[in-house]
Amino acid sequence: MDYYEKAIELARAYKGKIGIKPKVRIRSYKDFSLIYTPGVAGVSKLIKERNERFLTYKWNSIAIVTDGTRVLGLGDIGPDAAMPVMEGKALLFKYLGGVDAVPITLGTKDKEGIVEAVKAIAPSFSGINLEDIESPKSFEILDRLQKELNMPVWHDDNQGTAAAALAAFINAMKLVNKNASEVKVLFIGAGTANLSTYRLLKEYGISPKNAILVDSKGVLYKGRADEEELKQKNPEKYKVMQETNGENARSIEDAAKGADVIIGASTQGAIKEDWIRSMNSDAVVFALANPEPEIERKKALRAGARIYASGRSDMPNQVNNSLIFPGVFRGVLDVQAKKITDKMAIAGAIELAKCAEEKGLSYDYIIPKMSESEAYYRLAAAVGIEAQKEGLAEVSASYDELYQKAKNIIESSKK
Amino acid sequence: MDYYEKAIELARAYKGKIGIKPKVRIRSYKDFSLIYTPGVAGVSKLIKERNERFLTYKWNSIAIVTDGTRVLGLGDIGPDAAMPVMEGKALLFKYLGGVDAVPITLGTKDKEGIVEAVKAIAPSFSGINLEDIESPKSFEILDRLQKELNMPVWHDDNQGTAAAALAAFINAMKLVNKNASEVKVLFIGAGTANLSTYRLLKEYGISPKNAILVDSKGVLYKGRADEEELKQKNPEKYKVMQETNGENARSIEDAAKGADVIIGASTQGAIKEDWIRSMNSDAVVFALANPEPEIERKKALRAGARIYASGRSDMPNQVNNSLIFPGVFRGVLDVQAKKITDKMAIAGAIELAKCAEEKGLSYDYIIPKMSESEAYYRLAAAVGIEAQKEGLAEVSASYDELYQKAKNIIESSKK
Repeated sequence: MDYYEKAIELARAYKGKIGIKPKVRIRSYKDFSLIYTPGVAGVSKLIKERNERFLTYKWNSIAIVTDGTRVLGLGDIGPDAAMPVMEGKALLFKYLGGVDAVPITLGTKDKEGIVEAVKAIAPSFSGINLEDIESPKSFEILDRLQKELNMPVWHDDNQGTAAAALAAFINAMKLVNKNASEVKVLFIGAGTANLSTYRLLKEYGISPKNAILVDSKGVLYKGRADEEELKQKNPEKYKVMQETNGENARSIEDAAKGADVIIGASTQGAIKEDWIRSMNSDAVVFALANPEPEIERKKALRAGARIYASGRSDMPNQVNNSLIFPGVFRGVLDVQAKKITDKMAIAGAIELAKCAEEKGLSYDYIIPKMSESEAYYRLAAAVGIEAQKEGLAEVSASYDELYQKAKNIIESSKK
Repeated sequence: MDYYEKAIELARAYKGKIGIKPKVRIRSYKDFSLIYTPGVAGVSKLIKERNERFLTYKWNSIAIVTDGTRVLGLGDIGPDAAMPVMEGKALLFKYLGGVDAVPITLGTKDKEGIVEAVKAIAPSFSGINLEDIESPKSFEILDRLQKELNMPVWHDDNQGTAAAALAAFINAMKLVNKNASEVKVLFIGAGTANLSTYRLLKEYGISPKNAILVDSKGVLYKGRADEEELKQKNPEKYKVMQETNGENARSIEDAAKGADVIIGASTQGAIKEDWIRSMNSDAVVFALANPEPEIERKKALRAGARIYASGRSDMPNQVNNSLIFPGVFRGVLDVQAKKITDKMAIAGAIELAKCAEEKGLSYDYIIPKMSESEAYYRLAAAVGIEAQKEGLAEVSASYDELYQKAKNIIESSKK
């Protein structure tokens, strides 16, 4: 809890972690005639005629939108208490991705209200980062906004967390020499993070028949008593329930037997040593709950895990969406992409995995650290290339060009 | 048009006039544990328990909200073309008022849609500045948001312009030695600006019976053919139509005869020399259309105007809302006011008038110039004092304390 006190002290000292910065040097009051009226009317007229993207700060700006219903481990704390997290994220966006991100903490928790509010403010920005919105509504909100807006929309607790886990998964598989399409994966927790991690891992190559998800009611399987309820209230989970292989493993202990990988996105204590002991050889355990993982590193290794990853910055193998979102947004902004797709997230994860691989993988190094700046530039470039492949980019540029562009912008924003 | 080209050049060079600035120094990646997780959760928890305003940047942040329907002299150009103006304004807010202002260019022009969008994003900010929204809907939007939100809401084309005009009016009356309650005032134009200027001047002391407004259809008077239509569609104008004295002056020429003051908020050419010739002695003419005034200074003086003011920065007596909004918001933010009232705007205008008076009034100096920094600090303090008088401030502070606070914040934001 020492962290808490220090963070409060810091917040009091700075009175906010971000601010608006004028980028134009003002030498005299006469400069206002160009920055503002009458000159600015010329810029407006030009945009009206042909929308040149780089005439305003919008080309590089996104909104971080939350309703404050699922903030960190704190739950539904509302918009005001969510602000410190959102402005902290805005700072990370600037520092790690060179992106101008504005915190928008909404006064409505209503699904329709959130969709309408984001659509209303959308023309102010070039991208939307949804954050800390409770599931299941977060899935529908993301889905609708991705369809109804012609701009990149991302839910970081969904795609960001999943892409980071995928990057770690890719390298873990290389180290234990197993094939993604053959490994058995047990997901502990079936909230936004794990449903999305499952979705990306499936898109990458694991087989639904080798996957089992577990929620607070136990193993998820087709025909479970709450099936109809889920169909109505949580279609994303319902879909996963239909296709994964929980039917023959009606207890978690059972499901853990022979598993190659366990991925936790649940709460402290949710993974048992006994389960790890019963896993296949070269067991891989990702305990991604924050701030306290589902099982401690020491215990997991003692129980036989070959590779352990968590969300903790004080341990090896930190799986953290901060490795993903800055580069993803840098990438889509630099090619003026109209969407962010799961494929772009996967392309980013693959690139991130490569970064670590090229440095030399080990059981304690399966994913780059946050301090490896190059990983962000590479991820941005890979995302930009994928956007072009999918026909969703307005700018065409080579990998090297995008890498250099991202590097320039991010380096200058760190100064 | 040279201004236009130079402004476009500037916009291209800077690629946006504002950006997000991290305020916290980052020394190593370990700092993220205080700026972001896990430490930030402590700040969120504290705000959840008791909302300490200064723990996030929100205490000093406002939104500049437009639907792009009435941008400068350009009309309904939409949200994208409005962005250069909004980010220019954000820069002015920071530079002149030390306020962190975020441009929000809305994708809806619907009255209800605008009200709902602003209410949804309201918890992200400590104030709302409405900008360049067409009338008559702007009046109802302002009115509803002021009632339904517990925070300062301001429409700059309404209260800002009106307060600047009032400050100039106060000093003009001193110079010509006339009494506000006795002078005849003719308003050319009955859009947002002049309806609001009329409202503030009335609140300050002119008599409705001495006021005549003119719109595109001519003199506004009770019983005019479009009375019922206005009652439905433009209640603000309808109200003014009921109480002002247009009945006996059914032509503008007629209305100008014997007038003491003409205030134009219309278009180039809308004030005729002949009208000025027929005014009372010591005629006062404010030609506030931008960028080209209703009548040129030279012509107005030739026709007998004693005092001439306009919106132009290259002429004496520039009546400009940039003198008002930075100080008004600085003032309400510094006392954590729950509202901005017309009375606060008037208190600001009176203080602004005093600033000029203390320096020494002349026909060519009835209002401070934008470069007189002290005027902003004084205006902020006067607004803060008035907010306290009205019981709308959460902080109590003396004039001197507020002056010093405003000075510190604004000076540091200019650096």
